[in-house]
Amino acid sequence: MTATVPETQTGAAAAVTTWLSAFSEALAAGDPAAAAELFLEDCYWRDLVAFTWNIKTCEGRAAVAEMLRETLPGLQPGNWRITDGEEAADAGGVIEAWIDFETAVGRGHGHLRLRDGRCWTLLTTLEELKGHEEPRGLSRPMGAEHGASRDRTTWLEKREHEASELGFTAQPYVLIIGGGQGGIVLGARLRQLGVPTIILDKHGRPGDQWRHRYKSLCLHDPVWYDHLPYLKFPANWPVFAPKDKIADWLESYTTIMELNYWGNAEAKSAAFSEATGEWTVNIERDGQPMVLRPRQLVLATGVSGKPNLPSFPGMDRFRGDQHHSSVHPGPDAYRGKRCVVIGSNNSAFDICGALWENGADVTMVQRSSSHIVKSDSLMEIGVGALYSEQAVAAGMTTEKADMVFASLPYRIMHEFQIPLYDQMRERDKDFYDRLESAGFDHDWGDDGSGLFMKYLRRGSGYYIDTGAGDLVANGDVKLAKGQVDHLTEDAVVLDDGTELPADLVVYATGYGSMNGWVADLISPEVADKVGKCWGLGSDTTKDPGPWEGEQRNMWKPTQQDALWFQGGNLHQSRYYSLYLALQLKARAAGIPTPVYGLQQVYHRS
Amino acid sequence: MTATVPETQTGAAAAVTTWLSAFSEALAAGDPAAAAELFLEDCYWRDLVAFTWNIKTCEGRAAVAEMLRETLPGLQPGNWRITDGEEAADAGGVIEAWIDFETAVGRGHGHLRLRDGRCWTLLTTLEELKGHEEPRGLSRPMGAEHGASRDRTTWLEKREHEASELGFTAQPYVLIIGGGQGGIVLGARLRQLGVPTIILDKHGRPGDQWRHRYKSLCLHDPVWYDHLPYLKFPANWPVFAPKDKIADWLESYTTIMELNYWGNAEAKSAAFSEATGEWTVNIERDGQPMVLRPRQLVLATGVSGKPNLPSFPGMDRFRGDQHHSSVHPGPDAYRGKRCVVIGSNNSAFDICGALWENGADVTMVQRSSSHIVKSDSLMEIGVGALYSEQAVAAGMTTEKADMVFASLPYRIMHEFQIPLYDQMRERDKDFYDRLESAGFDHDWGDDGSGLFMKYLRRGSGYYIDTGAGDLVANGDVKLAKGQVDHLTEDAVVLDDGTELPADLVVYATGYGSMNGWVADLISPEVADKVGKCWGLGSDTTKDPGPWEGEQRNMWKPTQQDALWFQGGNLHQSRYYSLYLALQLKARAAGIPTPVYGLQQVYHRS
Repeated sequence: MTATVPETQTGAAAAVTTWLSAFSEALAAGDPAAAAELFLEDCYWRDLVAFTWNIKTCEGRAAVAEMLRETLPGLQPGNWRITDGEEAADAGGVIEAWIDFETAVGRGHGHLRLRDGRCWTLLTTLEELKGHEEPRGLSRPMGAEHGASRDRTTWLEKREHEASELGFTAQPYVLIIGGGQGGIVLGARLRQLGVPTIILDKHGRPGDQWRHRYKSLCLHDPVWYDHLPYLKFPANWPVFAPKDKIADWLESYTTIMELNYWGNAEAKSAAFSEATGEWTVNIERDGQPMVLRPRQLVLATGVSGKPNLPSFPGMDRFRGDQHHSSVHPGPDAYRGKRCVVIGSNNSAFDICGALWENGADVTMVQRSSSHIVKSDSLMEIGVGALYSEQAVAAGMTTEKADMVFASLPYRIMHEFQIPLYDQMRERDKDFYDRLESAGFDHDWGDDGSGLFMKYLRRGSGYYIDTGAGDLVANGDVKLAKGQVDHLTEDAVVLDDGTELPADLVVYATGYGSMNGWVADLISPEVADKVGKCWGLGSDTTKDPGPWEGEQRNMWKPTQQDALWFQGGNLHQSRYYSLYLALQLKARAAGIPTPVYGLQQVYHRS
Repeated sequence: MTATVPETQTGAAAAVTTWLSAFSEALAAGDPAAAAELFLEDCYWRDLVAFTWNIKTCEGRAAVAEMLRETLPGLQPGNWRITDGEEAADAGGVIEAWIDFETAVGRGHGHLRLRDGRCWTLLTTLEELKGHEEPRGLSRPMGAEHGASRDRTTWLEKREHEASELGFTAQPYVLIIGGGQGGIVLGARLRQLGVPTIILDKHGRPGDQWRHRYKSLCLHDPVWYDHLPYLKFPANWPVFAPKDKIADWLESYTTIMELNYWGNAEAKSAAFSEATGEWTVNIERDGQPMVLRPRQLVLATGVSGKPNLPSFPGMDRFRGDQHHSSVHPGPDAYRGKRCVVIGSNNSAFDICGALWENGADVTMVQRSSSHIVKSDSLMEIGVGALYSEQAVAAGMTTEKADMVFASLPYRIMHEFQIPLYDQMRERDKDFYDRLESAGFDHDWGDDGSGLFMKYLRRGSGYYIDTGAGDLVANGDVKLAKGQVDHLTEDAVVLDDGTELPADLVVYATGYGSMNGWVADLISPEVADKVGKCWGLGSDTTKDPGPWEGEQRNMWKPTQQDALWFQGGNLHQSRYYSLYLALQLKARAAGIPTPVYGLQQVYHRS
């Protein structure tokens, strides 16, 4: 199968069409070596499920050839073409194009960058499975079934019937543990794909995960970055949504998307039977024990879901209030009180700021260096090109922005990030000077690549400054530095002997890896088998090598059969949930899903 | 002020620009006669609030001149231009263009049709008030206020504070009685415009107006026609939404739009004081009496909100169940029972169909002729060009479709409708033949203009057939004809002596005019002063003349100061709520709103 070359086209389009044609021929001929020849030696092919039934980046020509040798048999990739309505573009020697293609079982979308006539980067993603397309647009449901039928049941009766059966007389194919945004958007996609799913959450209502956080919390990412699938925020939605507003949205979304959401339901233990291919999950719902037997188990309990509560000597003696940041109630009870916040990242700054605003006496304890960027600088320089009102006005859609983002290989992503953070450093020089004068240990990441790479590598170590940075810089929030040695009845004592009198201690000490949930829920053995979640293996602070090429264990098969992890910020939850949902749907539909390059485990936690 | 003529443009664009330029000059010169000269003798200028602070169609050149003589002083219309991104088009001798303009106080949008260089139809609408633009897109709220401030309150605290004050220590500027889709979308617009508003409804939750209807009910209009402002239905929304699903949507929408919605709240009486310019509205909320004192009162109680319950001799003796269609619970209790449904329009057919499907013995009593169109024919031929998946694919937006619709003058609308219904008659000939063979009295409206004109003129007299038409045509639902003479203990007796044994009688006998609510709530005198709502004065059945040119009393000033009516189907509620909201906002902001051509009252009910 070869791609058709239109009669007139730009030079860029011609180059792309020529390349696609040659690529298509090599694949059709089952010739991995010939296909790999079309790539630069120094190339990246990122595949989301379409070729590998995995999330995988092949780096270099040899890796491309090896992947194709394994995946080509039976795959039948073809119909490669430039996406309808899109034009190839030449951007300074790099030719870029949006592409579409098919395989035996699905339809795919992707992005191509050529240099000197060869592929530099290729992104291939599975968009939908043939015969299992989502019902929308022309194929949306009718709602009212026309005609007269004595077997008719109404929409409400069907919903009530499903609710009364699923989990009782019928088992869900997928059980999602965790009903925050990650669980909800995956549930929405699975509902559209017709995969019977239950979402469990220990809180009562969707959104309670947000409602129960400290009262000043707002999203740190802007609205354009945060859209959920299917239903976009309206044009009057705030740039940075307050926590209770996003909570209400998630609750409405859960209703509108007709999800089977079980609140007040907690998973107590889970075990997988190789023999039956089934999980046995013991849960407690409204205080009553129940057993569920799904085929697939998804942990959507939050990348930042499992609090790291440190254990300092004297915590048991301390007479004031003390709690992890995740359960900090907000500042109302602490007006005029002495508050010590251990930590110097997002939660620490948010909480210090709100305490100061409410008239508390606040000290931040910095234990290691942190990275701060001002929110407006991050918005304009860091994400504005893809996710902003200006980007929308220029024709950038959320869907396209997500794809552009996904097309940049992780291996070289820091090279694109460093110049952006150089700009921010310049723009906010005065702020950073003041911050350092105040004694704050500030860093820009090991290689100067800033916040987003820190997020991908370690998920910690930064603050998106919405105002509390200045409070530290100008001394309104006092800064102490060092490790905590112990607590007394009424103070935190640092390793240099500094004593910080305290009525309240907040441990803004971060979160553990998601496989900690596995240890609790399934077993320490399975947690070790699966290994650490998150991180790229970049060999930078808190992200030890070897290089993995993709985030560990997220949205893709793990070493434990039928166990999956869903999570990340709203952007990642939205984007990657499609590929996780398609992997689950394919298994539910009995479509073969040979996984290429299942990740090795190098780190247990 | 003259419009600028670009150097190159199409003939159509040149004609439009030339016309706009001349029109603009005549208006700037304060010369109504010169402006009117630019119109055909046989012309229509429909204005929504921009010129008239009213909803008004001027028919003929003299009416245009007269309107301008009254409205031009102080209005300062200018900056007339073809809308950015739109092109003028020549469609068989009629040149069409989208236009924008400004006045002293606002920005406007509209549509122009030229014939022979003169204006045939002109639509002018007020889009927004200067200095009172809705916060969205680039001006959307920030959500998180950056910086540190000791006066900060959170979004939730502000919402709770507002809820605790509004209606108690602070009075709403607008009180909307009725929390169905009409009240909700108007409330959403007023919230965006910053007008303090309370919506009252006697039901507990938003959407209950739908939840409490008969269980088989689905919207008869398709999804593309039904979008609410600000937040569109997702692409997986059903074509014809089931009642409980639209109910859930309205409830979510009310939360998302942050409306002050008081459920379990009923208005008992209302009186307007000319002296204070204030209403005194006695309400009962959760069973407790309260008084509200809004400046503006909006009845959004439903065009089809006030049931017409007939009074037949013997109703007090009848031993079975009997109720108006609006409180019919659905068929579940009537399996195997003898059911008589009085009426032959939408509700009657829906209810007969559902009763038959549940195994009841059903007789429909037709008292006068009805008009039936098959839903799929109506969708394809009647609304598909503007509201369908195909229209969306061709670039038609809901907003643009609404404007096209609004640009057609009511006086000649039937001329556009008649050919469509001729097509439907042809397409479904077999069905109509069978229906008439079954003895059903079928009509196409007095002038053959079909369903939509019936809706606009009388709001009754038709059925959008989703399947029950065939049940009558083939005799599954029995048909009786004539007037009801009386009821016995167990039968309905018609005027020809026919006795219809009955366990259930449903009165699908329609609804009264909205000013019936005024009589109940305010006084019969005010109801008479305001006159009948709805209808065009078309001098057709149930819509007596004289010709009004616009629907009576809807979305515009009435003879009662500070009393307004909002309603109609989802399309009308969406579209006209903008103009009603702008009229209310202008009054709240103290902008002069001289009403041109306040309607006379010819019919009291």
